Amino acid sequence: MAVILSGKEVVEQKKIDIRRRVQQLKSNGVQPTLDIAMVGDREDSLAYIKGAHKALDSCGIECRVSSYPETITIGHFIGEIQKKNNDDSVHGIIIMRPLPGSLDWKMVEETLSPAKDVDCITPSNLAGVFSGLRDVFYPCTAQAVIDILDYYHIDLKGKNVAVVGRSMVVGKPVSMMLLQRDATVTISHSKTADLEKVVSAADIVVAAAGKPGLVKDRHVKQGAVVIDVGINFVEGRLVGDVDFDSVEMKASMITPVPGGVGSVTTGVLMEHIAVAAENICINVKKI
Amino acid sequence: MAVILSGKEVVEQKKIDIRRRVQQLKSNGVQPTLDIAMVGDREDSLAYIKGAHKALDSCGIECRVSSYPETITIGHFIGEIQKKNNDDSVHGIIIMRPLPGSLDWKMVEETLSPAKDVDCITPSNLAGVFSGLRDVFYPCTAQAVIDILDYYHIDLKGKNVAVVGRSMVVGKPVSMMLLQRDATVTISHSKTADLEKVVSAADIVVAAAGKPGLVKDRHVKQGAVVIDVGINFVEGRLVGDVDFDSVEMKASMITPVPGGVGSVTTGVLMEHIAVAAENICINVKKI
Repeated sequence: MAVILSGKEVVEQKKIDIRRRVQQLKSNGVQPTLDIAMVGDREDSLAYIKGAHKALDSCGIECRVSSYPETITIGHFIGEIQKKNNDDSVHGIIIMRPLPGSLDWKMVEETLSPAKDVDCITPSNLAGVFSGLRDVFYPCTAQAVIDILDYYHIDLKGKNVAVVGRSMVVGKPVSMMLLQRDATVTISHSKTADLEKVVSAADIVVAAAGKPGLVKDRHVKQGAVVIDVGINFVEGRLVGDVDFDSVEMKASMITPVPGGVGSVTTGVLMEHIAVAAENICINVKKI
Repeated sequence: MAVILSGKEVVEQKKIDIRRRVQQLKSNGVQPTLDIAMVGDREDSLAYIKGAHKALDSCGIECRVSSYPETITIGHFIGEIQKKNNDDSVHGIIIMRPLPGSLDWKMVEETLSPAKDVDCITPSNLAGVFSGLRDVFYPCTAQAVIDILDYYHIDLKGKNVAVVGRSMVVGKPVSMMLLQRDATVTISHSKTADLEKVVSAADIVVAAAGKPGLVKDRHVKQGAVVIDVGINFVEGRLVGDVDFDSVEMKASMITPVPGGVGSVTTGVLMEHIAVAAENICINVKKI
């Protein structure tokens, strides 16, 4: 039976640190604030915002939501992002995806200020992740994976890690972060010919394919560490990409869903907002 | 005995296409031009420039070299790059590395215009490579690897590829390009615990570690395709990262050094200069 790597424990630890930093910022007259820009009213976006709002509130971070109609023009939307870039009372900005087809994502990501890009969509921050720079905001979910591994002192150096999934929010960035920590990384995906062979050779598995129950016990080496990034709803129930019940018997450590990576993601977001606010404070003091 | 994948053959094919496009540009009044900025006078930079000059000349592309003293200030150097960005007679710009420590690389790469960044150092182009965008300039050497695989119709979909090396000029970008083509990619490096195990599981090996003779026959699966990106000088002789004589007996296909990837790199550079010049033409016509 595997040890359960509790994301809740990781995030509780983070919150202690975040609350302290938020307090410090407030005593310097700064109210750390996130602005979420939402076009239209997708149900999943609303659910995300509700969750983020609650978490941020519990740490004293303000969460503003700017709602725009689906009919907004790209010129108007870009102007709104520029306003947020220039608004000193906003420290982090998130733009909910997907946008309507009429809004060019490339223009949007190039407009957003990298200093406020707390979930890593700007070319500048993406290039930093690709290059392995330290002083950029990494995608929150990818960072959450690394933070869980760090919290539980799981050594990455020289380890074989199988990343399942190649998305820009988890698979690719987490692979770069693992490489940076000297892991040997195999990136697999839906076109991988023999997933079992790839995953069963790994000391650590990061499952981020968005397919419920994709990784089963036959995929996993005895004693492997399994990090489940999947967030899938199946018959109204939240499940990961890992078939928990069978894999738990074979892995040495495993993250649950819910209560694993997903719990940590909002914690990372709050850390990024705190850093963004602190950086602005430092820059203001310099001037 | 492996089939030799001749880089020279690939580049000769490219040159036919490049000369045609250069002719077309010239008939539109455009002389495609590369500007190489060099600070100091490192011997390896001079050798590179000499080679590039000769190749570009053979295809009708002008090659200018701007030399600056090691004592140049960052302000002055940035100003020079901006001048090149704004100079309509310059279509591609390369900045020789390494720069003296007094010149901040980050400022340099952020100044260069992505539209003239023909060897992919700007955050914008790097983010494009990371995201798998089509319309950006990929690093020339990484692109040369892919072009050789394409020229010889080597299918990548679902194949296991071992990339040895994690540099920003080859290892990481070529891994992203291979992923884009649906290969399953393992990135290994100097800290990989068992290189033999990783490489011997691969259908295709891309050796880009910069270590002469690192990949030997025992590392390679019978019948694998081996692409050698290494350019190392050992006792005055140019050798790759692959122990050619032994690996040739086991591989199904292999690139030689010299005459392999290195030969194609300048061809890719010329293609990028042609594209940059064509894009500027199109934009001018639009205006």
